[in-house]
Amino acid sequence: MEKTEKLEEKTLSTKELYHGRIINLRLDDVELPDGNKSKREFVEHPGGAAILAIDGDDMWLVRQFRYPYKEVIEEIPAGKLEKGEEAIVTAKRELQEETGYDCDEIQPFGMIYPTPGYTNEHLYIFLAKGLKKRAMHLDDDEFISAYKRPLKAVLADILAGKIKDGKTCYAVQKYCLTHGILPE
Amino acid sequence: MEKTEKLEEKTLSTKELYHGRIINLRLDDVELPDGNKSKREFVEHPGGAAILAIDGDDMWLVRQFRYPYKEVIEEIPAGKLEKGEEAIVTAKRELQEETGYDCDEIQPFGMIYPTPGYTNEHLYIFLAKGLKKRAMHLDDDEFISAYKRPLKAVLADILAGKIKDGKTCYAVQKYCLTHGILPE
Repeated sequence: MEKTEKLEEKTLSTKELYHGRIINLRLDDVELPDGNKSKREFVEHPGGAAILAIDGDDMWLVRQFRYPYKEVIEEIPAGKLEKGEEAIVTAKRELQEETGYDCDEIQPFGMIYPTPGYTNEHLYIFLAKGLKKRAMHLDDDEFISAYKRPLKAVLADILAGKIKDGKTCYAVQKYCLTHGILPE
Repeated sequence: MEKTEKLEEKTLSTKELYHGRIINLRLDDVELPDGNKSKREFVEHPGGAAILAIDGDDMWLVRQFRYPYKEVIEEIPAGKLEKGEEAIVTAKRELQEETGYDCDEIQPFGMIYPTPGYTNEHLYIFLAKGLKKRAMHLDDDEFISAYKRPLKAVLADILAGKIKDGKTCYAVQKYCLTHGILPE
């Protein structure tokens, strides 16, 4: 397959159509690699942090109602970055807020672009171990059920399509691949 | 961890703030599980389809400029569902448009919610084998470089954080886990 040399698009003008509580919407005029013009609509997002909290053979999950899908889904604890906040700080805060547990060890475990066609979200994943009980502090508009499940059962649910959250699939699959854990 | 019984939110009113070429933006008034009111802003998306095209020990990738990140990234071929289109039709079309190859075998290989906090996108993944050369037909505003790479090299790049696209990480990691392929 012959490769196209030039792929970059040039911004000609940018406009904020909506400034929201969490996301903004922008519509830009761009110049395509061939010199033609087009428009690009995309979401500006402050960035997210999620945490894979391992506790022996178990890991922490939360169940919450995700309004865009009108559905309660299972995910690893996560939240959006506050202004100027480092992702690792967000991850530790969300772990404690959503599960009531703190951790002794935390390390970066990857970063993904969740759906690069229309959002600029950077989604940072962290791996936490050495969990210690603290207290839960959910946001006023946050209703979450948190619990531990065996990692291998979560992997089985991911491979069976029962767990659909992208960051949860990414983090658990990566952990299993890098720790020699194959499905039974 | 005690579980919250009630997690669902009720829609009180819904408003379309923006109707775009690919995405729409909605702002809804909701009633929270405790009876309080809040607002939910989210993106309406027609759904996407991506295809993991396996060719012996290789797989197909495309490089394209993703405007929200102002960056050329590596991904599996993908595109958005046209109105009323089945995801498998989208996947086959995008494979041929972006790589110039058709496939003998195609099967569903999972569906993810890429970032459930603010989009309702359903992202369907398909697994293709038995690839046959056809012709490329990119959209007018689509500039893509397509090529094959060894699957194991792609997995290594995913685990090293060099490949950041969420659907690509999900599909390749799932394929490796379900085919007993661990990183070297």
